[in-house]
Amino acid sequence: MSIVAEWIALDWGTSRLRAWAMAGETVLAAASSDQGMGRLARDGFEPALLALVGDWLAPDRRTLALACGMVGARQGWAEAGYRSVPCPPVAADGFQRAPVTDARLEVRILPGLSQATPADVMRGEEVQIAGFLKAEPEFDGVLCLPGTHSKWVRISAGEAVSFQTFMTGELFALLAESSVLRHSVAAEGWDEPAFLAAVDDALSRPERLAARLFTLRAEGLLTGLAPELARARLSGLLIGAELAAARPYWLGQAVAVIGAAGISNAYSAALRRQGAAPRLAEGDAMVLAGLIAAHRIGREG
Amino acid sequence: MSIVAEWIALDWGTSRLRAWAMAGETVLAAASSDQGMGRLARDGFEPALLALVGDWLAPDRRTLALACGMVGARQGWAEAGYRSVPCPPVAADGFQRAPVTDARLEVRILPGLSQATPADVMRGEEVQIAGFLKAEPEFDGVLCLPGTHSKWVRISAGEAVSFQTFMTGELFALLAESSVLRHSVAAEGWDEPAFLAAVDDALSRPERLAARLFTLRAEGLLTGLAPELARARLSGLLIGAELAAARPYWLGQAVAVIGAAGISNAYSAALRRQGAAPRLAEGDAMVLAGLIAAHRIGREG
Repeated sequence: MSIVAEWIALDWGTSRLRAWAMAGETVLAAASSDQGMGRLARDGFEPALLALVGDWLAPDRRTLALACGMVGARQGWAEAGYRSVPCPPVAADGFQRAPVTDARLEVRILPGLSQATPADVMRGEEVQIAGFLKAEPEFDGVLCLPGTHSKWVRISAGEAVSFQTFMTGELFALLAESSVLRHSVAAEGWDEPAFLAAVDDALSRPERLAARLFTLRAEGLLTGLAPELARARLSGLLIGAELAAARPYWLGQAVAVIGAAGISNAYSAALRRQGAAPRLAEGDAMVLAGLIAAHRIGREG
Repeated sequence: MSIVAEWIALDWGTSRLRAWAMAGETVLAAASSDQGMGRLARDGFEPALLALVGDWLAPDRRTLALACGMVGARQGWAEAGYRSVPCPPVAADGFQRAPVTDARLEVRILPGLSQATPADVMRGEEVQIAGFLKAEPEFDGVLCLPGTHSKWVRISAGEAVSFQTFMTGELFALLAESSVLRHSVAAEGWDEPAFLAAVDDALSRPERLAARLFTLRAEGLLTGLAPELARARLSGLLIGAELAAARPYWLGQAVAVIGAAGISNAYSAALRRQGAAPRLAEGDAMVLAGLIAAHRIGREG
């Protein structure tokens, strides 16, 4: 039995493309590929999309594909610009139409969010925020979205009020895989007490961060520090440094962490240790919920 | 006219091999190649050395080649171990003989230095320190050796007392060349006021470091931050973070900076801004002076 989508939801990031065939708010089918924005030239987006969702398209009309993520960046399919905070995470304005040749397709890309001072941008996370607020429209507090570039976002009255980006995930990957620490840090494995101790360490004396990183290598050489411990400590030092800098965001606030289970649990444990009581929301589910919310707003707007 | 070396001095780091043909303390000739430890398997060291200095070897005796640097690391030619601080930067013990097949060669590698608490190691910088102390045996204070892995070393009574490594140079390279900041940070160029302002910023609120990095990217996207300014600011943020963590080393101490001119000038400017009055010593000259000192000690020991 072949599926015909009423519309298509797309989460198109740097490294992955995920698609859902939709009928209203109902998911008919899901698919994904490794054709992320990072590996595509401008004329590669339409073929990559058709390869994944071509079977879902009705032959006699244009099907709307609504996309969020880095597909809308300057080096993506079509630059979708930014909306300035404070504002609702998604709104009817700013959708960017991408150029297509196939008469069965209409592609619209959601804009990101920007902040003038301190300068900051997000692209993709705003949809997860919209997904979270769809279920909890009265939420007043702070959302933490850990990842390659973690975001902390103040939410009030249904709007993103201000936000701050941290390069924690990217720093961890660069240090663990490409720096001299790669010789001492495992690719897998975890040690929760070592992680929490490193978080405490970084939070209590954040100015010492730069001095602590090479210690992981030196202990590996001199005392045979277990690579799994080194991995947990490196993560704890970097997340601790992020929490130190993000303290004005989370201190005394209602906090929810939106992301994949592993990294969300690490942030949650670190925050609980500081006396916060974060809730968790699964990141992928929030993306889909946010795209559904954006689709509804786009239709109404 | 062919040169015959009495002995050969070798500075053999991760990315370069430099050699001097010596007669006592006199340099007869110099040569260098890109055959650093990082690109050589264990059986590649002797051929790489012979390719560079074979012409300097007397045919009828073994010529001593005295080497320092990563050639003595675990993944180098022969592991040369570490001597524990506090100790003189070079001493007669711990020289490691490397296996050779050519009857004209005798290769000895200097050990590095280690510290138990906090765990730390150095390999190569101890020779620069010895070179500095050869000219200034009475120096009492702190040496700063900026580089891929910067070292801060307390010196008293001719000994290295304690030290601390910072991954500042490697972090800068990873962030500027391999992270998302590469889109906003120039490969060349400099802006001294922007550098110094970023140093001040990092020193006055070091706990905010993690929040400042992504700002360089966001300002590049939103306000067209000049890539040369972004480069100077990134350097200032990282060096400022290092100075914040190294404050117990430099505050109120006599400080000398040993390194290449460009990076030494940046550290010197940053330190002067904090009220320190660092002296400068050229790094390459210190290596050669230190190898000469080690050769003399080895002969006497």
